[in-house]
Amino acid sequence: MDKVIDVPDLGVPRIVIVGGGFGGLEFVRNLKKTDFQVVLLDRNNYHTFQPLLYQVATAGLEPDSISFPIRKLFHGFSNFYFRLAVVQKVDIEGSRVLTDIGELKYDHLVIASGSRTNFFGDEKIKYHCMPLKTVVQSLQLRSLLLQNFEQALQTKDLQERSALMNFVIVGGGPTGVELAGAISELKKYVLPVDYPELDVRRMEVHLVDAGDRVLNALSPKSSQSSQKYLKKLGVILHQNTFVTSYDGEVATTKKGDQDGVIYSRNLIWSAGVEGNSPKGLDASLITERGNRILVDEYSKVLGQENVYAVGDVACMKTEEYPNGHPMVAPGAMQQATQLAKNFKNEAAGKEKKAFVYNDKGSMATIGKNKAVVEVGNFKSSGPFAWFIWMFVHIMSLLGMRNKSIVFINWFWNYLNYDRSNRLITNRFSKEERKQMRDQGKAGVVI
Amino acid sequence: MDKVIDVPDLGVPRIVIVGGGFGGLEFVRNLKKTDFQVVLLDRNNYHTFQPLLYQVATAGLEPDSISFPIRKLFHGFSNFYFRLAVVQKVDIEGSRVLTDIGELKYDHLVIASGSRTNFFGDEKIKYHCMPLKTVVQSLQLRSLLLQNFEQALQTKDLQERSALMNFVIVGGGPTGVELAGAISELKKYVLPVDYPELDVRRMEVHLVDAGDRVLNALSPKSSQSSQKYLKKLGVILHQNTFVTSYDGEVATTKKGDQDGVIYSRNLIWSAGVEGNSPKGLDASLITERGNRILVDEYSKVLGQENVYAVGDVACMKTEEYPNGHPMVAPGAMQQATQLAKNFKNEAAGKEKKAFVYNDKGSMATIGKNKAVVEVGNFKSSGPFAWFIWMFVHIMSLLGMRNKSIVFINWFWNYLNYDRSNRLITNRFSKEERKQMRDQGKAGVVI
Repeated sequence: MDKVIDVPDLGVPRIVIVGGGFGGLEFVRNLKKTDFQVVLLDRNNYHTFQPLLYQVATAGLEPDSISFPIRKLFHGFSNFYFRLAVVQKVDIEGSRVLTDIGELKYDHLVIASGSRTNFFGDEKIKYHCMPLKTVVQSLQLRSLLLQNFEQALQTKDLQERSALMNFVIVGGGPTGVELAGAISELKKYVLPVDYPELDVRRMEVHLVDAGDRVLNALSPKSSQSSQKYLKKLGVILHQNTFVTSYDGEVATTKKGDQDGVIYSRNLIWSAGVEGNSPKGLDASLITERGNRILVDEYSKVLGQENVYAVGDVACMKTEEYPNGHPMVAPGAMQQATQLAKNFKNEAAGKEKKAFVYNDKGSMATIGKNKAVVEVGNFKSSGPFAWFIWMFVHIMSLLGMRNKSIVFINWFWNYLNYDRSNRLITNRFSKEERKQMRDQGKAGVVI
Repeated sequence: MDKVIDVPDLGVPRIVIVGGGFGGLEFVRNLKKTDFQVVLLDRNNYHTFQPLLYQVATAGLEPDSISFPIRKLFHGFSNFYFRLAVVQKVDIEGSRVLTDIGELKYDHLVIASGSRTNFFGDEKIKYHCMPLKTVVQSLQLRSLLLQNFEQALQTKDLQERSALMNFVIVGGGPTGVELAGAISELKKYVLPVDYPELDVRRMEVHLVDAGDRVLNALSPKSSQSSQKYLKKLGVILHQNTFVTSYDGEVATTKKGDQDGVIYSRNLIWSAGVEGNSPKGLDASLITERGNRILVDEYSKVLGQENVYAVGDVACMKTEEYPNGHPMVAPGAMQQATQLAKNFKNEAAGKEKKAFVYNDKGSMATIGKNKAVVEVGNFKSSGPFAWFIWMFVHIMSLLGMRNKSIVFINWFWNYLNYDRSNRLITNRFSKEERKQMRDQGKAGVVI
């Protein structure tokens, strides 16, 4: 018999939630003081505020200020249980979840396992690039960036030196655009004073986008503004262009029938995400594009009685969103809230309600005083949009301490054109990085 | 020929400094705008404020707020060069330093490589214990502590559960005392609310001290107060007691001819430090006890013309301090300042001055409102001493940003009895930890 995760039997229905992201936490929060046993499983004991990972990677914020301990969120929830576990498989037949620390039976299962980086099957790129989906990856990227600058001092080979200093960011979505902007600000304000021996002007920041405008979830006008900001910061924008190969040193690109090469030791892959669906679900339940789990309007997995999915991993096809809702935090939270309400309604003998996604708008920041914001018909760009962006992000962070510390950091960086956290905390040789990658730890993740 | 570290030849004397600790940085700071080329080597690109490592390990502070990027300190120093390098050997004959990135010639060498954990030759303890001398180690300790609590939930074996929750801290110096206090505060304020399923009262914090009073560098009165505070916080104090063996699960102790055992998966070794002398120096130059480098009153290594040592790694025997000065940060900074002045004096044709250590006193904090401070004849304990301790530590931190963030953290923790940074950022299985230790990475260091 497998090892069993030791959770007491409370004699009430047990809901097991997979994943402590925006959706999973919101679901738990809404089930305080109900007659359900709520068991949350996550591979980390903290929640990650993913929208700000790129600021950790570029030395603007400390990792601890965008992370929040999960247990701390649910003090006083007498029906809440947390287990630090990596979910390996879902066994629908047996109503149980299999994890690295044992199996756990459920009465209801809520899959909120979010999204993961989508490499579209390119194993070579996956092996060599840096992804940016976790706190650990963001610290690795920060270390790699700074370590390559230190190394650039040690070579007289100009091509190698350029490769160490150049960046290729693949994907013109919010992560790619924000990262390109942040790295360009490092280039502008921080690196020249830190490395007076290097000719930082030679450093190139390439943003390679497969589409003809960045941030294509926003209006063409906002894309225009963003591109203007990116160019102002010196980002080299490649549009309608694909990265076709990367071997750790050279990226090859394709635009129409034109081929190109960029020498770079730093390729960051933010070209797409896909649902992080757990193993064990029938293939018919998973979308072909995007690896998301098909759910009905009550977030119930198609054909299942007691299995649900919310957030990025769920795909609820509606007339307005035939490919499912956008994979964004507000959507996950709304969906989780509605699902929790339905659990409570059902227990109280009330009607369940179908979920309706409420688009809260979209925003991205490219640099100091440079951002675009769209909420309904309201569109803004420039310093005011930048201010809104900061306000919304600070308010969305969990906890007063994190809010204060992020505020201080941003205030400090604003006044001093600084990024204070430029510490190489994970220092690895090229051989060690290769070894770790060979062990399947993409992006020198440990 | 070996690879050479690429540093330009300025045509002025080159001083190479090994180590960016308190001594090394102070030395560089005093050589601004002088006719010396100053090249600093360190294995990290940041300075670590070691006195607060224990607060990172116990989730009270984020690692970034006690670290400071070295390059940032010396903006505007046109004669300053930094290289990220691990010094492997000093070659006095050849006037060069050998590192992992190549060799470097010097005209003058200043060894400021600090101290390292002293295991007194016990390889088994070294293999199994957690040391606490670096930022990475402090994060490892934080992760181990929390991970063992998560694991304690998964066992019904009461002895195993106790072992996961128990702590053994070896050494009654400032690090041991402060750590024992901080872990006891976690036990008192944080762990019971985070882990309502565990009977945290069963958790034991053992402080094992070979002497008959803790903090023996302070007066007996301060030791008394500290012991009173420790007992108030529930620390089990073993005096005149040695840890004779530790296998990762069980620590055996000896007091006189009484043997004892403590079951614990968490043994922290803070029983001593020794000079971190680089290889390549003649054995006659190294003290037998303490592994420090013998220097004259001008911090010049005995018998050498152009090699100096300052700080913890240096041993200047004087009438008042026949075994060298205490290994503390203020001493290192004073010695480095004097050495830099002597370099300037000599260049200006002035007299060199012998170094005289000025004892700035000593302090330690055991917990909220619980500290001891001694400065000259001034002795204090309790809330006022605690306030002084906090003030001195905040003022000693490098940079306004770090000062502000540490202040916010402490203010927050004071009001909320909280430790907010309880994130398991380095999650390893027992097998992975074993593997890393087998590779010589003590304390699951990566």
